[in-house]
Amino acid sequence: MKFSAKQIAELLNGKIEGDSNVVINELSKIEDGRSGSLTFLANPKYASFIYNTGASIVIVNNDFVPEQTISSTLIRVNDAYQAFAILLDVYNKIKLNKTGISDKAFIPKSAVIGKNVYIGEFAVIGENVVISDNVKIYPQVYIGDNTRIGEKTTIYSGVKIYSDNIIGDNCTFHSGVIIGADGFGFAPKCDNDYMKIAQIGNVIIENNVEIGANCTIDRATLGSTIIRDGAKLDNLIQIAHNVEIGENTVIVSQTGIAGSTKIGKNCLIGGQVGIVGHLKIADNVKIAAQSGISSSIEQEGAVIQGSPAFKKLDYQKSYIFFKKLPDIYKRLEEVEKKLKKLF
Amino acid sequence: MKFSAKQIAELLNGKIEGDSNVVINELSKIEDGRSGSLTFLANPKYASFIYNTGASIVIVNNDFVPEQTISSTLIRVNDAYQAFAILLDVYNKIKLNKTGISDKAFIPKSAVIGKNVYIGEFAVIGENVVISDNVKIYPQVYIGDNTRIGEKTTIYSGVKIYSDNIIGDNCTFHSGVIIGADGFGFAPKCDNDYMKIAQIGNVIIENNVEIGANCTIDRATLGSTIIRDGAKLDNLIQIAHNVEIGENTVIVSQTGIAGSTKIGKNCLIGGQVGIVGHLKIADNVKIAAQSGISSSIEQEGAVIQGSPAFKKLDYQKSYIFFKKLPDIYKRLEEVEKKLKKLF
Amino acid sequence: MKFSAKQIAELLNGKIEGDSNVVINELSKIEDGRSGSLTFLANPKYASFIYNTGASIVIVNNDFVPEQTISSTLIRVNDAYQAFAILLDVYNKIKLNKTGISDKAFIPKSAVIGKNVYIGEFAVIGENVVISDNVKIYPQVYIGDNTRIGEKTTIYSGVKIYSDNIIGDNCTFHSGVIIGADGFGFAPKCDNDYMKIAQIGNVIIENNVEIGANCTIDRATLGSTIIRDGAKLDNLIQIAHNVEIGENTVIVSQTGIAGSTKIGKNCLIGGQVGIVGHLKIADNVKIAAQSGISSSIEQEGAVIQGSPAFKKLDYQKSYIFFKKLPDIYKRLEEVEKKLKKLF
Repeated sequence: MKFSAKQIAELLNGKIEGDSNVVINELSKIEDGRSGSLTFLANPKYASFIYNTGASIVIVNNDFVPEQTISSTLIRVNDAYQAFAILLDVYNKIKLNKTGISDKAFIPKSAVIGKNVYIGEFAVIGENVVISDNVKIYPQVYIGDNTRIGEKTTIYSGVKIYSDNIIGDNCTFHSGVIIGADGFGFAPKCDNDYMKIAQIGNVIIENNVEIGANCTIDRATLGSTIIRDGAKLDNLIQIAHNVEIGENTVIVSQTGIAGSTKIGKNCLIGGQVGIVGHLKIADNVKIAAQSGISSSIEQEGAVIQGSPAFKKLDYQKSYIFFKKLPDIYKRLEEVEKKLKKLF
Repeated sequence: MKFSAKQIAELLNGKIEGDSNVVINELSKIEDGRSGSLTFLANPKYASFIYNTGASIVIVNNDFVPEQTISSTLIRVNDAYQAFAILLDVYNKIKLNKTGISDKAFIPKSAVIGKNVYIGEFAVIGENVVISDNVKIYPQVYIGDNTRIGEKTTIYSGVKIYSDNIIGDNCTFHSGVIIGADGFGFAPKCDNDYMKIAQIGNVIIENNVEIGANCTIDRATLGSTIIRDGAKLDNLIQIAHNVEIGENTVIVSQTGIAGSTKIGKNCLIGGQVGIVGHLKIADNVKIAAQSGISSSIEQEGAVIQGSPAFKKLDYQKSYIFFKKLPDIYKRLEEVEKKLKKLF
Repeated sequence: MKFSAKQIAELLNGKIEGDSNVVINELSKIEDGRSGSLTFLANPKYASFIYNTGASIVIVNNDFVPEQTISSTLIRVNDAYQAFAILLDVYNKIKLNKTGISDKAFIPKSAVIGKNVYIGEFAVIGENVVISDNVKIYPQVYIGDNTRIGEKTTIYSGVKIYSDNIIGDNCTFHSGVIIGADGFGFAPKCDNDYMKIAQIGNVIIENNVEIGANCTIDRATLGSTIIRDGAKLDNLIQIAHNVEIGENTVIVSQTGIAGSTKIGKNCLIGGQVGIVGHLKIADNVKIAAQSGISSSIEQEGAVIQGSPAFKKLDYQKSYIFFKKLPDIYKRLEEVEKKLKKLF
């Protein structure tokens, strides 16, 4: 894949300064730039690199004013970071453009397969599954009976989706994701033993959802576990039965959310957070990494930390004094000694 | 699958009030009830829903006294929740009744396969493996050489079981479970380098054990890692080499238990708990979520929290004052100032 | 597999005391020894077992002086623990010596396969993949296009490696490991929505690296996520995009390291630790389990704990007083009362 400065400037609606015929075949960081690579400068912190980068092309903001001569060709755009992200995406789409249905995949007659679908080797499609147009299913994926996959969704190698789930459009599931395993439901019996509660609900994942490697999204006992439009999940996250994750909420890796909890829209949940079951978390809430949430958060936009969590600023103040506790204790003892002399 | 109120009442040994010929084809929550669905009322908190539910049949406790007219057919039983759980189970057993051995599975001649076994596409069975009667092995499962699987055990798509392990009856392993990977054993060498200690032990899983999606149960260095009868593990749990989990102990997701630790019977271990190696945890111990356990717990029935954990009630008291630390510090300073005036 | 005391003594360069013709066919713990098993005594704590063990052979240190008669044959060596580890390794190498390329694996013509390679059933090898000599690839593994696997590396069943990654020699990846999934990169758009930043970098794993079951190692946005020589990762660990892990660093299970953080050499990172992005951790740092690291650690050999973490000894002192907080508060109140009387 080779592109000239001219082609790229056209794609990005940018203005060239320098040789418009120079050709690149890779994208790089500015500090790793070399002949044939294209890079970008958005953060002023990295500005010093532009004067020595070996990159053939550098995308810069329209308002960038060089302080020395630059040997690379520049392409000026409104937002260099975003322009570069567009190029990354173009590059990736060309690279990942797998097509065709492997004759080593297992697809029953009852499955409905759309147009321009990729299904890799040793994938297993269940009975009555619907695979919409432009879906990519990598090798060794399993899709259980009656599950529906929306358009343009990409499912990487080794994802397992149980039966009866509904997956939206433009979703991406990374390897090792498990969707629709049984929720963790057991009723105690008299003799310390447990009776399993069958989990007959499903999982609904709306559009534009990304789920990272080895996440687990359990099916509902009854009804649905729901991940709403645009939610983004990092790796190794646990979503229990009947949970609902709101639109555009972002969750960092290794967080776990227990059964029936509802998370609002546009929340930012840090890594290794634990949220207990049957809670409601308001919209726009921010939860610091490693926090434990044991009661509902009703205040929109709350920013919290701790286990159990409270206001982040207050947590951080308390933690400063936690570090001073040995000193605080010693001072308290001295105060007591002095007082003793008085009484 | 359609059932009449009469059929269901017979199955549950219940008493019908209303139309015994009404037919249902799905199970629902009471608030989602509609024509053709069956639901239940056990928790009085939900009683108000019964007067407006669209469900065709509602299972209620024998002692339920309606305060208004109810249009649904009622089935009265001793324990409505348990009766509904039985129906969920019946429903699930019918739905999940996969049978037959796929000709796309790989099964060597040395493997012994019982009666009424399901083995899905692209499953790999190792040499000398024993699969007992009524076992279900979903597609893409791997079972290493010499491993034995007990009767009626269900192994979902993508589970990987290494060689030489012993799995009991009536177990359920969800997708992504890894059983028998090497324990984490390395001996330091003089030059900061490590020598791997080969892990030649195995994993023994007794009967009625459920293991959630993407859990990892490592094989022992020597001897066995053991999960006893009736233990229930949620998702993404780490069980290290030579650990032993007692009977009917329940562990919530993302908890990790380090090497050679023995957990007693009937314990309840919350989510994201960490337990260090070589400890003993007594029977009936309850450990709050996100706790860290760094010493053995000898007291049966202890209830603990914190990192490191101590008595849960004491932790919660300390945490109340942790929140007040900025205030405590200010008051200490004031006390010191006042005292200064006196001396 | 049967071995005589004579064969084993030769292998270990040890000295026999007792019957040099006795034969063993298994390795055991000293407390589980029985006729036909070989065990070892290294830790004096276990010395009492040697007088009653049923083991046919016991490996002991050269300086071991028995206090009673021992019925087992002894083999004296310089370091009994290390000698036993060597035997474990020999045993394991014989047991795990899978060879041959399954005709049920999928291998395109463009892939380059070395000598003495094992590739199991339903493994999928991508275009232009290079598999070096003596590599073992278990069933159902996926290796994406252009990825290179170094010599003698073992990849267990179900590992998924995306395209364009570089894996060194003598590595071991356990089942469920995901290498090269997209880093978690999203740029906020004006309407609470996110634009995915395509992740076009790769993962480089150097030599002698072991990665435990269900770990996730994300590919870089640009450039490489790097795991250096001799690093050892336990299970269920998250390594984000552009992270670098130094030589011989050991990480215990369920730890997560966020994007672009660089960890030094010879570090020991406990379980369930969280490290935020864009930090630098010096060499030889030790981080206690469940700690949260939110700023760079510049001091080599620092030993830290807490969330956020500080010096481990200081954390432990503060925690002692955390437990006493209810008492501290009561004493402060008393001090205040007494002072009130004075003013």
